[in-house]
Amino acid sequence: MTTKTQPADIEAQVIDDLVVANRILAKKGVLDGWGHVSARCPNNPKHFFMARSLAPALVTAADIMEFDEDSEPVDQRGRRMYAERYIHGEILRARPDVMAVVHSHSSKVLPFSVTDAPLRALIHMAAFLGDEPAPVFDTRVAPGGDFTMLVLNSQSGAALAKELGNRSVVLMRGHGMSVAAASVRLVVFMAIYTQINAEVLLSALHLGTPNFMDSAEIARSDRPDRGWEAWAAEVRENE
Amino acid sequence: MTTKTQPADIEAQVIDDLVVANRILAKKGVLDGWGHVSARCPNNPKHFFMARSLAPALVTAADIMEFDEDSEPVDQRGRRMYAERYIHGEILRARPDVMAVVHSHSSKVLPFSVTDAPLRALIHMAAFLGDEPAPVFDTRVAPGGDFTMLVLNSQSGAALAKELGNRSVVLMRGHGMSVAAASVRLVVFMAIYTQINAEVLLSALHLGTPNFMDSAEIARSDRPDRGWEAWAAEVRENE
Amino acid sequence: MTTKTQPADIEAQVIDDLVVANRILAKKGVLDGWGHVSARCPNNPKHFFMARSLAPALVTAADIMEFDEDSEPVDQRGRRMYAERYIHGEILRARPDVMAVVHSHSSKVLPFSVTDAPLRALIHMAAFLGDEPAPVFDTRVAPGGDFTMLVLNSQSGAALAKELGNRSVVLMRGHGMSVAAASVRLVVFMAIYTQINAEVLLSALHLGTPNFMDSAEIARSDRPDRGWEAWAAEVRENE
Amino acid sequence: MTTKTQPADIEAQVIDDLVVANRILAKKGVLDGWGHVSARCPNNPKHFFMARSLAPALVTAADIMEFDEDSEPVDQRGRRMYAERYIHGEILRARPDVMAVVHSHSSKVLPFSVTDAPLRALIHMAAFLGDEPAPVFDTRVAPGGDFTMLVLNSQSGAALAKELGNRSVVLMRGHGMSVAAASVRLVVFMAIYTQINAEVLLSALHLGTPNFMDSAEIARSDRPDRGWEAWAAEVRENE
Repeated sequence: MTTKTQPADIEAQVIDDLVVANRILAKKGVLDGWGHVSARCPNNPKHFFMARSLAPALVTAADIMEFDEDSEPVDQRGRRMYAERYIHGEILRARPDVMAVVHSHSSKVLPFSVTDAPLRALIHMAAFLGDEPAPVFDTRVAPGGDFTMLVLNSQSGAALAKELGNRSVVLMRGHGMSVAAASVRLVVFMAIYTQINAEVLLSALHLGTPNFMDSAEIARSDRPDRGWEAWAAEVRENE
Repeated sequence: MTTKTQPADIEAQVIDDLVVANRILAKKGVLDGWGHVSARCPNNPKHFFMARSLAPALVTAADIMEFDEDSEPVDQRGRRMYAERYIHGEILRARPDVMAVVHSHSSKVLPFSVTDAPLRALIHMAAFLGDEPAPVFDTRVAPGGDFTMLVLNSQSGAALAKELGNRSVVLMRGHGMSVAAASVRLVVFMAIYTQINAEVLLSALHLGTPNFMDSAEIARSDRPDRGWEAWAAEVRENE
Repeated sequence: MTTKTQPADIEAQVIDDLVVANRILAKKGVLDGWGHVSARCPNNPKHFFMARSLAPALVTAADIMEFDEDSEPVDQRGRRMYAERYIHGEILRARPDVMAVVHSHSSKVLPFSVTDAPLRALIHMAAFLGDEPAPVFDTRVAPGGDFTMLVLNSQSGAALAKELGNRSVVLMRGHGMSVAAASVRLVVFMAIYTQINAEVLLSALHLGTPNFMDSAEIARSDRPDRGWEAWAAEVRENE
Repeated sequence: MTTKTQPADIEAQVIDDLVVANRILAKKGVLDGWGHVSARCPNNPKHFFMARSLAPALVTAADIMEFDEDSEPVDQRGRRMYAERYIHGEILRARPDVMAVVHSHSSKVLPFSVTDAPLRALIHMAAFLGDEPAPVFDTRVAPGGDFTMLVLNSQSGAALAKELGNRSVVLMRGHGMSVAAASVRLVVFMAIYTQINAEVLLSALHLGTPNFMDSAEIARSDRPDRGWEAWAAEVRENE
């Protein structure tokens, strides 16, 4: 008997986290029926896991597919796929440090994608937003620009990844946001707290001039590691 | 044995969708105890199905009645009926492309019915709202105008249908909205995302000048087809 | 065997409605742990029924007490009582047409009690609010004025009833509102839609100048009679 | 047999209240996965009880640890601890009248921590907020100031306790608030109604100039004692 974690175990863990992430993000209103979350394959870092085209609230391990570096299915078997899977493929290609991506239509975040009001770190739980306004991606003006508002091919995905740069969150005009992080659990945390930071900021802008986090504070911030357990327990309750 | 879907099956499917639609829309806050949703009869396109007068959250297949083109019951059997069923009858009469209608008092949409702020497509999921402000119906100034704020006869229903024109959504001043679409599932989608577009727009107007979808983007937009499954699963959970 | 409803049956029905009303209003956020709802005794119109001092969400038929016209208990048996029961006693004394009263701390209504923004009928479901601003009761300036913000005796209750006049809703500065209606089911409806009218009005005031219901529309409005069933079903589900 | 309550019983009662408090505050959105609540040990007033590092929604009696007056664990047994436990230790040290402390990231309260809008008593249920603006603690300018935004040692906790002074609530810039009260049940009440007062105040500031409670009213206010029962019943329902 060996205590070393086998690759198969690691993969099963990532897939389980991905399933739970789908359900948590649906419950928190980060994902409606149309958003998605992906994870880099631990045993093949050029590939990623993501559900077949299905509302996140319904995703189970059996729905997880593997996609290659061009966001094409390894073994489609007739399953329908998210049209915007290139968001995930291209961010993962451009950012080796990223292990998981969320694409969300959060109605709390959307207002910041269609106005000039800057979305930046106001509350310490969202320090990852940084002290510069989150970049806004607009398909109309992106390279190979079009009028779909969607990311339907690798070129568009690469343009989105470029707009994201080395940030954690990129807004998408009239469409939502994409979030990139070093693990599934972390990307869930970041997506949820981007939403909360947006809510608090909207209210703060009603009250006056917000006192944002400064760069020294952001530099000192750690990534919190509680929360997942409680969120996971909530969605597992009714299984 | 034939694989061809029989008319009776199609009708049963429409009625089942209609029941689920009632429950989804109640759960999402689109319908309070007083709104309603209808579907054109697949076997008799001049007629439509709608529940007897009952809060949408409680509707079952046994509560569905059939109405003729004048919104009169085919076989009333003493059941109470929605007083505003003419909304449905007249929109279905004026719009052969429409297969389903929702009438809602959504508190997120109502503010746009009582002010000059235009409700139009801001987020890509609500492209169907178009780039012109949603029309606003007002019984005081409509043909045969009255002071009921309600649509209680065919004349008033026809005036509402005229205000709707070839659009998907018509606001009703101080009263709510009506939504028309090519299927029950689509009208549920549109009613829910009209509500979300209204919420996002209210927040965006706090933040600055919203960057709306432009006409080229609206022209390119498809009608999404996910979501129903998850919404239906949620309301079927407790049956 | 007689088909005539016996007085005992009528009383049991009122008490059952009162219990369900407590639970509906708690679920809808109209009542927090501190509000209350009462009903005039059908067999003794000078008396009223109301729960012993208990959070509304927990009220059962066994918790209902009878109070006399001075808001004193008919048979206290050591039970603790709501300190503000005089709200109910004095409104019922002043208004023979009223059969039920709600006292609420609704956080949606409260903003209108502490500012000059007038709360009046904006949506047709809340026509009962009328076209004049809801009166605001302030213990500091009421006859026998004090600094409790509460209604702790008959004199203060009578002053509140006077401020209410022949209206359905009186705001209470920094404290909440009281609602009076011709039945328990109707007072539940009115309390819920006062809250919704307040929410819609807050949003409408963000968007521009609200187009309120006019007096002819208010005069034509009926009292809706659906909704109770669905609300009651919701709170009975888990019994 | 004696009817006198034994010390062990009192302690068990405090621990049970603390567990229920964790779950109530999580359900009400006062605590996310990262807030915490503590109680002074009844048998050793220099010590306090608090959960090991765990999301509040999941806390059970087995998770409660005892901390000494320097916020160090009496018997750690390898359990992870809240990094900000010094908030509790130092407030309890500075305020002998305080028996329980909540530290919250409430998104309703946060906007008041990052703007000049004063948070003070607007509604009678939140009279404990007083008629002066709640103090705001900022780690950047506090003695031994740093850029963590957090309270990670006794010095920082003492500075926070000093900012709190003899008040019930201290805001923490971009971070949340801490609440201090004479019992676990009371601190739960105060944390919930600080959140509601903040919500009502935000709306009131949209509507106009809020009419706050005056000092005579605040002086007359009692501490309410209902509510806990209903909140506790809600969280115990699914055990």
